[in-house]
Amino acid sequence: MIRSPRVGIAVALVVLGASATPTAQPGPLRGFVQPRAAAHTTLESRFDAALDADLLRDWMRYLASRPHHVGSPFGKDVADFVAARFTEWGYDTVIEKFEVLFPTPRLRRLELVAPTRFTASLVEPPLAEDATSTQQDEQLPSYNAYSIDGNVSGELVYVNYGVPADYEDLERHGIDVRGKIVIARYGGSWRGIKPKVAAEHGAIGCLIYSDPRDDGYSQGEVYPAGPYRADDGVQRGSVLDMPLFPGDPLTPNVGATADAERLDRSDAPTLTTIPVLPISHADARPLLEALGGPVAPPTWRGGLPITYHTGPGPAVVELELAFDWDLAPAYDVIATLEGSERPDQLVIRGNHHDAWVNGARDPISGLVALLAEARAIGELVRTGWRPKRTLIFAVWDAEEPGLLGSTEWTELHADRLRAQAVAYINTDSNGRGFLRMSGSHTLERFINEIARDVIDPQTDVSVSARLEARRRVAEVAPRFQTNGDHPIGALGSGSDYTPFLQHLGIASLNLGYSGESGGGSYHSIYDSFDHYVRFGDPTFAYGVTLAQTTGRALLRLADADILPFEFESFSETVTRYVDEIVTLTDEMRTQTERTNRLIGDGRYVLAADPTTTYVPPTVEDPVPHLNFAPLQNALTRLEASARAYGDALDPEAVAALSVADQRALDQILISTERVLTRDEGLPGRPWFTHQIYAPGFYTGYGVKTIPGVREAIEQRDWPLATTQIALAADTLTLFAAEVDRATSLLTGSR
Amino acid sequence: MIRSPRVGIAVALVVLGASATPTAQPGPLRGFVQPRAAAHTTLESRFDAALDADLLRDWMRYLASRPHHVGSPFGKDVADFVAARFTEWGYDTVIEKFEVLFPTPRLRRLELVAPTRFTASLVEPPLAEDATSTQQDEQLPSYNAYSIDGNVSGELVYVNYGVPADYEDLERHGIDVRGKIVIARYGGSWRGIKPKVAAEHGAIGCLIYSDPRDDGYSQGEVYPAGPYRADDGVQRGSVLDMPLFPGDPLTPNVGATADAERLDRSDAPTLTTIPVLPISHADARPLLEALGGPVAPPTWRGGLPITYHTGPGPAVVELELAFDWDLAPAYDVIATLEGSERPDQLVIRGNHHDAWVNGARDPISGLVALLAEARAIGELVRTGWRPKRTLIFAVWDAEEPGLLGSTEWTELHADRLRAQAVAYINTDSNGRGFLRMSGSHTLERFINEIARDVIDPQTDVSVSARLEARRRVAEVAPRFQTNGDHPIGALGSGSDYTPFLQHLGIASLNLGYSGESGGGSYHSIYDSFDHYVRFGDPTFAYGVTLAQTTGRALLRLADADILPFEFESFSETVTRYVDEIVTLTDEMRTQTERTNRLIGDGRYVLAADPTTTYVPPTVEDPVPHLNFAPLQNALTRLEASARAYGDALDPEAVAALSVADQRALDQILISTERVLTRDEGLPGRPWFTHQIYAPGFYTGYGVKTIPGVREAIEQRDWPLATTQIALAADTLTLFAAEVDRATSLLTGSR
Repeated sequence: MIRSPRVGIAVALVVLGASATPTAQPGPLRGFVQPRAAAHTTLESRFDAALDADLLRDWMRYLASRPHHVGSPFGKDVADFVAARFTEWGYDTVIEKFEVLFPTPRLRRLELVAPTRFTASLVEPPLAEDATSTQQDEQLPSYNAYSIDGNVSGELVYVNYGVPADYEDLERHGIDVRGKIVIARYGGSWRGIKPKVAAEHGAIGCLIYSDPRDDGYSQGEVYPAGPYRADDGVQRGSVLDMPLFPGDPLTPNVGATADAERLDRSDAPTLTTIPVLPISHADARPLLEALGGPVAPPTWRGGLPITYHTGPGPAVVELELAFDWDLAPAYDVIATLEGSERPDQLVIRGNHHDAWVNGARDPISGLVALLAEARAIGELVRTGWRPKRTLIFAVWDAEEPGLLGSTEWTELHADRLRAQAVAYINTDSNGRGFLRMSGSHTLERFINEIARDVIDPQTDVSVSARLEARRRVAEVAPRFQTNGDHPIGALGSGSDYTPFLQHLGIASLNLGYSGESGGGSYHSIYDSFDHYVRFGDPTFAYGVTLAQTTGRALLRLADADILPFEFESFSETVTRYVDEIVTLTDEMRTQTERTNRLIGDGRYVLAADPTTTYVPPTVEDPVPHLNFAPLQNALTRLEASARAYGDALDPEAVAALSVADQRALDQILISTERVLTRDEGLPGRPWFTHQIYAPGFYTGYGVKTIPGVREAIEQRDWPLATTQIALAADTLTLFAAEVDRATSLLTGSR
Repeated sequence: MIRSPRVGIAVALVVLGASATPTAQPGPLRGFVQPRAAAHTTLESRFDAALDADLLRDWMRYLASRPHHVGSPFGKDVADFVAARFTEWGYDTVIEKFEVLFPTPRLRRLELVAPTRFTASLVEPPLAEDATSTQQDEQLPSYNAYSIDGNVSGELVYVNYGVPADYEDLERHGIDVRGKIVIARYGGSWRGIKPKVAAEHGAIGCLIYSDPRDDGYSQGEVYPAGPYRADDGVQRGSVLDMPLFPGDPLTPNVGATADAERLDRSDAPTLTTIPVLPISHADARPLLEALGGPVAPPTWRGGLPITYHTGPGPAVVELELAFDWDLAPAYDVIATLEGSERPDQLVIRGNHHDAWVNGARDPISGLVALLAEARAIGELVRTGWRPKRTLIFAVWDAEEPGLLGSTEWTELHADRLRAQAVAYINTDSNGRGFLRMSGSHTLERFINEIARDVIDPQTDVSVSARLEARRRVAEVAPRFQTNGDHPIGALGSGSDYTPFLQHLGIASLNLGYSGESGGGSYHSIYDSFDHYVRFGDPTFAYGVTLAQTTGRALLRLADADILPFEFESFSETVTRYVDEIVTLTDEMRTQTERTNRLIGDGRYVLAADPTTTYVPPTVEDPVPHLNFAPLQNALTRLEASARAYGDALDPEAVAALSVADQRALDQILISTERVLTRDEGLPGRPWFTHQIYAPGFYTGYGVKTIPGVREAIEQRDWPLATTQIALAADTLTLFAAEVDRATSLLTGSR
């Protein structure tokens, strides 16, 4: 059992029958030729032994000791501190600086002017129980980055989560938001979707508040008594149109170096078109209470002790926002440990360092795990080991405003990364609980093997077994994959893997622990060391566990004889995505027929209360039958190719490969994820080149798989859907051909 | 089209394509031989013409003008007023008096004594906007009738709705209510279940409050601004153990006449065993806020602006209740119109007259429809018409405390009713909206035909078409019966049909309109005329529509040549119930296997947060395969018998019947519902003799169909389930034989 004795938590826990829990015995390591596998297992034990929870705590205490958003004085100190550690641990370390557009508030005013008057405080008060909450001079005020300047006044409309379906509900009530200011609650989508959809419907301003049902007292004790968001708490955050492209709004596709060519701000397409401001529910309540109009539908009602209405009016609000639109320096820390045998193959590990305020959890809880890994690997190097491939630790600045540090760096180094990057492993916030795994499905089996080798610090079973227990208890009917792996999630957006995976086509993983350290400090001044050590991961046991998990991924990727990619999980997963899309289309067709018939028969009107305003939906064009055959044929080919590679990958074939052939095979394996991209990108958003994974255009962080096809269907653009089906089929066929090349290399070596 | 011109509401409503809505053309009336059917349709038009919304309004204004609970001075006035009207309209009218146990509060005290102090007000304040709310001298205070006296003190535990599943959740958190006082919110079951289940788990007291999420500001504007329950509003109500038997607790099975033999109160099994009190959320909030312990699960959280905890403690409460345990007089008004040809066949129509306070909606909105029907029928009689069968209008006292007026009357007259009663038609509260139809499925097709003949006053389509529109809009996949009828609900309990249907086996229907006049006046002092004419049915159009609906049922049942029972709908419905029970058993088996495996593997513990208390469930005995074959064979027989009767019932066969044969056939038809009862009753509750419909022992009002079998399975009593399957099969076989007798009579006549 691989476990650091320093990180066990003494939990008096009787696990009834835990010995009966199937924990896979470690087999030979994927990609390692014997006897190197055994030696590698020893290496991982030594890596674990070099992890020290006390160091994680010390680093967090320092790194979260002052606000450190991009451009802040302490942000530079953080970068310098991190760089100094890497240097100390033996890495070639540079700080790469970019100049990025980063607006900060100059003026924020929100007033209710009718039927009563109220001025929003827009302030998160300092607390005696939270030492760093008093650092008001250095804190960014609560705001949404990349809101445009504006001074608007209008009737207020409550739009629930502010997603497209909510506006359809409003239409049924005859409510139009044109010329109005909308107030949406956080949740239901990524926040940047809310002002975008509001503006598309004609709204002139947008407020976003944290409803206590979703994020506050309804969930548990509020801070400082408990971990949840208090009445005055505000969630800051970016509203950049990231589904179009992330990164510096002025330098799409190129690194935002000092001399880069820049768009005029007025031409920057990812800024909002209406002013938007996040507020607390203490500030939202008087506004919501002043609304008239219909009572909001049951699912729209939050946790405030009021009757929720939609408006419009009689509440009238004024919203005035002005920002300093300066460029800020963003400091990415890049630390390299050159590979001994295949230095041109790069395994990259990243976590951001900038925070909205002090950011103990987001991002420091993930960053301290990264530092622990880097330090432990540094110790291994000191004893004479060196990775076969090059390891790069990247600590990003300016993630919070929109993945700027990582995006600009990948754009600047795109050619080298496309040629050399093996994989990118990302972390961000971490806490107590269960392993979250998302990423490229070519790495699904790989990361599942690691999850079976890492021990959960609270229960002494593997983190995989614990995850399995939770899933089996939660699921009505178990839906495990037949091979016993946990299905990993597909990546949408929300952290720094996006430019690697979705722009450059580099296989990526995003990892973290969560589920037992809930709370509401996200993007507030209370995301502090004091909060984290009470409610996050008090002993830093899960910080160490994350380092064990991510460290294994790095060490195995860096040292394997051949890279541990695998294609059957990918094939099964993509088949499931296609099935989903076919089912979606069929359901849309049935639903459209049904709705049109109900409209034609006048039944919507008959079902409505005649004493209230009701506008029935309008007839929609029928959903045609689409030709999915190209995609289904491509899947058949893919399945055969994936199985053939798996069959070819027997120990003898691998052992028989020359080192040159191993390298050649690696290059093919690296290229597989790259083949899933297309240079022209997705329809309407060329920056996103990956054809399997993308953030949803109307969900934001939420992933859309096979996005070209799926979104065309969702948007009812049937000609585009047909084109995209052909393109997706083409992409998967190219992918299968690449897998076949790998198989040929293996079988040819026999 | 049958419609009273006086009751149309001028609604400027464009029903798009409403003409396309399929509204069945009226065919020949079920049970009527031509040309009597045509004449009857004319009679129904004359009936409609005699309905007058203004009279309904006037009656409600008077009948709700003062509090009129059982035993109150105005309660007697109400009975006298109603009796006088019946007499005036030509009915033989008597007031039958019973002496029933009816406790009223002498002392109510609820105090929070730790960690802070708070004394509950227990008062609904009068409102200037509600004229009768000021009649405090005559109002019953807020209480739960048939709570025992008690003075208890203990730690408080929040138990959500207080149903058995909630106590299982508490067990998972290691929380035991023994020696504690529980606080449950209204909802999730009938209120009387809450103290019963609490006491079974060892609690010593029970509070029930109205949470604003279920019944208050979360739903809409509160009274007097809107119709919903305000912060101080309290729901009174009975907590008699009605699933054991309803009616006077001291005289089970016999009428509570002055000289009836009575149980000692200490032996009365339907009183609660612990004190119980209903409170407002204004009174509940300080108690709930004072609770510690685990945060309540997400589905337990209501609409108060607090973090809901389960306790136990630190809140400690004292609850002291004392009642006057007097007998009260209950006055049932019984008005008879003797039948001209078949006076010994009784068609009974009922609605209660007692209220918790003023009761404009509950029960007067239904009672004024009943009065309108009686008056209109009186007018028909004045013009020379007389029903073929005897019509009885019954206006019950003491429904609110537990169906006392109707239960004692049916117990007293049981022999006559068993021999002669054709059907019982009940109404209670009424409002604006859609027709609710529940009852015996032998009358499903009959009442559906009426729903197609009655016009909705707001939309000018039939109430059936409007119901169909709502159902089709609401349902994802339409699930109409193949014959186009709306499936009618099975009856549990909650109004005066229970003794007729479930004790005596008399075919019953419960009818009313609702769905567009929501609100929270139920069982409060604000259930007033002022409230009803603002938020209920302001023009009394739906009062008239209810009279049209129920009046048609009476006229057709009273005048048909042969009674309009039908058995195919019943057969299909019972087949569905058996399918449900088989599926339930299979799902319980799968679930038990799964849960036991998860327990054995220790997965529940692994899935739980080790820093919180978690107690895994215990292993349960596996669910055996039960022999459902007797029931399934009985269903096959039933289906054939039902179809044969339908086939035999052609117009020629009916026309060929002699009047003597018609009467003989009627008697068989009347007996069919009777055959569904068994003298020994249901297991553990012999008063409930019906084998197909009963209120659930652990749901209260909620129905359990084929209750002997279903509840034995739910309680995991497999030997009992097997016995009950055989009994249910036997019952259905006897029923089929009775239907066959009817068929023989018809086919023999040809």
